[in-house]
Amino acid sequence: MIHIHRQNVRFGDCDPAGIVYFPRFFHFFHEAMETWFDEHLGQSYADVVVGRRLGFPSVHTEADFRIPTRFGEVVQVRLRVEDIGRSSLRLGYEISRDMAGMQARPSTSQPIRVVGHSVVVVLDMNPASDGYMRSLPIPDDLRARMTEFQGR
Amino acid sequence: MIHIHRQNVRFGDCDPAGIVYFPRFFHFFHEAMETWFDEHLGQSYADVVVGRRLGFPSVHTEADFRIPTRFGEVVQVRLRVEDIGRSSLRLGYEISRDMAGMQARPSTSQPIRVVGHSVVVVLDMNPASDGYMRSLPIPDDLRARMTEFQGR
Amino acid sequence: MIHIHRQNVRFGDCDPAGIVYFPRFFHFFHEAMETWFDEHLGQSYADVVVGRRLGFPSVHTEADFRIPTRFGEVVQVRLRVEDIGRSSLRLGYEISRDMAGMQARPSTSQPIRVVGHSVVVVLDMNPASDGYMRSLPIPDDLRARMTEFQGR
Amino acid sequence: MIHIHRQNVRFGDCDPAGIVYFPRFFHFFHEAMETWFDEHLGQSYADVVVGRRLGFPSVHTEADFRIPTRFGEVVQVRLRVEDIGRSSLRLGYEISRDMAGMQARPSTSQPIRVVGHSVVVVLDMNPASDGYMRSLPIPDDLRARMTEFQGR
Repeated sequence: MIHIHRQNVRFGDCDPAGIVYFPRFFHFFHEAMETWFDEHLGQSYADVVVGRRLGFPSVHTEADFRIPTRFGEVVQVRLRVEDIGRSSLRLGYEISRDMAGMQARPSTSQPIRVVGHSVVVVLDMNPASDGYMRSLPIPDDLRARMTEFQGR
Repeated sequence: MIHIHRQNVRFGDCDPAGIVYFPRFFHFFHEAMETWFDEHLGQSYADVVVGRRLGFPSVHTEADFRIPTRFGEVVQVRLRVEDIGRSSLRLGYEISRDMAGMQARPSTSQPIRVVGHSVVVVLDMNPASDGYMRSLPIPDDLRARMTEFQGR
Repeated sequence: MIHIHRQNVRFGDCDPAGIVYFPRFFHFFHEAMETWFDEHLGQSYADVVVGRRLGFPSVHTEADFRIPTRFGEVVQVRLRVEDIGRSSLRLGYEISRDMAGMQARPSTSQPIRVVGHSVVVVLDMNPASDGYMRSLPIPDDLRARMTEFQGR
Repeated sequence: MIHIHRQNVRFGDCDPAGIVYFPRFFHFFHEAMETWFDEHLGQSYADVVVGRRLGFPSVHTEADFRIPTRFGEVVQVRLRVEDIGRSSLRLGYEISRDMAGMQARPSTSQPIRVVGHSVVVVLDMNPASDGYMRSLPIPDDLRARMTEFQGR
């Protein structure tokens, strides 16, 4: 399965060359992960982070920037689950132009502009816990949803 | 008339206190101005800036922050036209929690969290122009739409 | 007294017009407040915030942007204490080009590009405290230093 | 040779977990590249970008985040030239805590917190040029300096 996160490229996302300042794409990746939680994992990202005191820091991330993205464009970030470990998760991202509302052609026929991957780990963020700031196994309810989303 | 811009408060918008880092609210104001162009002024903000080589730099901005806004909340930024000058424009902003999708009560009954104002000027951004980087009268088509939006 | 905070304007601070994206100036103001704590209040801002669990959220801020600041320029942010209340503090900011290393002329002879003011309040950020998220009187040690800095 | 860029981790660089929001590290990498130009390539990054109308967009970047970096810490970003191609450049980055001013021990004995790499290409950013937005060979003067810096 694929989660699609739409992103409008605003003036403040862009650099003096008029294109998205590349660190900003990692913010787009993170926003896509947040809406993936919200829409597919049964609980919003904020509720998991604030309410359950879990953190999901990135331990690795990478991206290839193939085609520049300009101020005013609308893109879609497509998120896939690539691997589910004991306490880590590998997510894949593809960004292409979103043509919704502009024409009938499906967005997936647009060339891919950015390809990225991130590995996040589940961290115990409860200051009162013995394992504070240490990794935790992915909680069962989230693992079940992630596995279902991954499609196996 | 009022333009409503919805904004999801993401993890990356927030500071170590778990609330929106206050400079970010000015980015929210700017995003609201961009979507106001897109939806009400007959041409997208990007088309006006890139295509017509006009700039809209802020010459003044201010805000009162009454109630903190937390990670995971959805807010609405309400934009009003407060004054239309020869080459400048005063916009008013109010931010409150957006309860759409959560309950039937209208969002406008939510307490106001942030009140702000900005004055922007129209700037000639065409490097080939004699007036490059100088202010310009608001173009007639935009002025007509702004005046209509303002409601007088 | 005046605290001077030097700031290099980087590529990522600037927008498609090649000038500082205006919300970024409020980040510069905040950075100047942080280095003011570090250098003049006897304890680093991070130690006060993290160690003593105090917050200093802005309840009001405003700025006039008189002259654009371009990518590659070095500016100085000059911070003054304008008023010290029971639990609030009004700070004044002026930004001008920093000519240090470029010529002998003092930077203060440079025209002022941005003038701003912020009111911050002291907040109890200790989750275990009865007054969590409420304002506190400015602690005596900080008040003494602030008053001395203000020059009365 | 190694270029060292010092970076103070400010309040606004950090997320609700109190650590650097990871996209921000790529901004730190970019700042380190900017100061590397300024100090080692004979011309400031801004002069090269604005004056000579060259761009240096990233086509690939990656990072491993080994140890979190907290609000208030000072880090150093160490930049190495890993490879010089015809129109591209591979840079390596390492971030560790900067202990300067805190103790005598050299910073290089601090554990590495972030390791990263970026590939940037030289782009023709002159709108009047036939090759606008296309890659260019690295100009001879910059190549000579980069090669000398690389140490072969």
